[in-house]
Amino acid sequence: MTRQQLINLIHTRRSFLCVGLDVDKNKMPAHLREAQDGVFLFNKSIIDATIDYAVAYKSNLAFYEAMGIEGLLQLKKTMDYLHSLDKPAFTIADAKRGDIGNTSQQYAKAFLDPQGEFNFDALTIAPYMGADSVQPFTVYDGKWVILLALTSNKGAFDFQFLPVAGQKKLFEQVLETSQQWGTPDNMMYVVGATKADMLTQVRAIAPHNFLLVPGVGAQGGSLEEVCRYGLTNDCGLLVNSSRGIIYASNGEDFAERAAEEAHKLQQQMSATL
Amino acid sequence: MTRQQLINLIHTRRSFLCVGLDVDKNKMPAHLREAQDGVFLFNKSIIDATIDYAVAYKSNLAFYEAMGIEGLLQLKKTMDYLHSLDKPAFTIADAKRGDIGNTSQQYAKAFLDPQGEFNFDALTIAPYMGADSVQPFTVYDGKWVILLALTSNKGAFDFQFLPVAGQKKLFEQVLETSQQWGTPDNMMYVVGATKADMLTQVRAIAPHNFLLVPGVGAQGGSLEEVCRYGLTNDCGLLVNSSRGIIYASNGEDFAERAAEEAHKLQQQMSATL
Repeated sequence: MTRQQLINLIHTRRSFLCVGLDVDKNKMPAHLREAQDGVFLFNKSIIDATIDYAVAYKSNLAFYEAMGIEGLLQLKKTMDYLHSLDKPAFTIADAKRGDIGNTSQQYAKAFLDPQGEFNFDALTIAPYMGADSVQPFTVYDGKWVILLALTSNKGAFDFQFLPVAGQKKLFEQVLETSQQWGTPDNMMYVVGATKADMLTQVRAIAPHNFLLVPGVGAQGGSLEEVCRYGLTNDCGLLVNSSRGIIYASNGEDFAERAAEEAHKLQQQMSATL
Repeated sequence: MTRQQLINLIHTRRSFLCVGLDVDKNKMPAHLREAQDGVFLFNKSIIDATIDYAVAYKSNLAFYEAMGIEGLLQLKKTMDYLHSLDKPAFTIADAKRGDIGNTSQQYAKAFLDPQGEFNFDALTIAPYMGADSVQPFTVYDGKWVILLALTSNKGAFDFQFLPVAGQKKLFEQVLETSQQWGTPDNMMYVVGATKADMLTQVRAIAPHNFLLVPGVGAQGGSLEEVCRYGLTNDCGLLVNSSRGIIYASNGEDFAERAAEEAHKLQQQMSATL
């Protein structure tokens, strides 16, 4: 999906909500836990319930890999379902990959290749290994790399805020250096909602890039603050909520409750746009 | 595998060679490319040919993921085969993972859990997200996290050498901070052979940790230099070679040629130990 298509979708749905499909079997409704294709059926119900309120779905690979190869089959069914819908959605593999150039090419093929099994629109990447670990993800038309800049967890303070080479913080250096590796048409950044007060600094360096913002909801981030400091004329934000939506209920009403939570966020977003 | 078991294995085989199973179908011998379970059969032949000269096998997840779910089935068969042998080997998932705590727990389960499909001994992890992204990998007995410190690629110079908070370089800060997250019994570091001259600095901060050293061979690193600056009384090194061994020939003699290359490295290692 191109930048313009994403912006159009955001304006059509009046939403910049990304729903995180971080499926943990233990938190799924009991009737789906042991069902054949239970994870896919859970995802399908969540997608059907939320797609009018969301523009993106982010699958956290860890949760699927923890279920073994069967988990990846469930993810593939989920992606096939998303691709089959006449309502488009931007799809993100939250995989935090990144390796030397010839290896990153293989990861790009695994997740972004239109002929591949998953065919995601975007993939999250860690910046530690530098340019050649990131650039292989920018070569597919209409596909995106989403580089970690400032993450939502406590461990973000271990390295990301260190002053480097003068006055900048490491995450600012990552933003600045990586501006040379891609464009606002193929590169986004992860900026955690729990550090929304840093969005002004982020926007000073990356004024036009879309930001994928996790951490609203269960992790404590505020949508209002994220919008205040992060919104651009093109919206420029995808705000993710995972647990707050998909586990709003673990009863048979899980999809209705997910829809309610997504709708609430969409209404706040609509008011801001 | 515990530290003591690894050290014993190194002394028994008089080797600290790690063979990188980075299987690219296009580089495999023609007769295996289209064969049923061709990737597994390729790996099995390489393992059989090299296990007397090597103590470890490192599977680069990107290459398997690029083949889709079928690739992961081939990896599972490879791991099952390694676990079935009466000759032990240390197994590494070169996966460069790392995410917020509850997500890293899922990655740890996927790769290290003895009940899981892969049951690797160790997993490579990127440090950018800090303590809570790394510590979930240290909780399994006899299992290891291998943290990226100094990588072998050109992009390593983008961030890893930046001076942070005074005189230290970022990779030195990563080494220093992470010393609090694990012990030499459950934490190793990746230090690229192409930066062997930095091993003195690495050893000043991490005198006892094992180092996984990629980049000997195709990437240009020197085994002699790595040993001169990196060896400890407990050996303290696992030196990886991938392409130089597994693609020594792409003919029907690939396994014999792999054995020759591995044997050459083992002899150099034996002389050093």
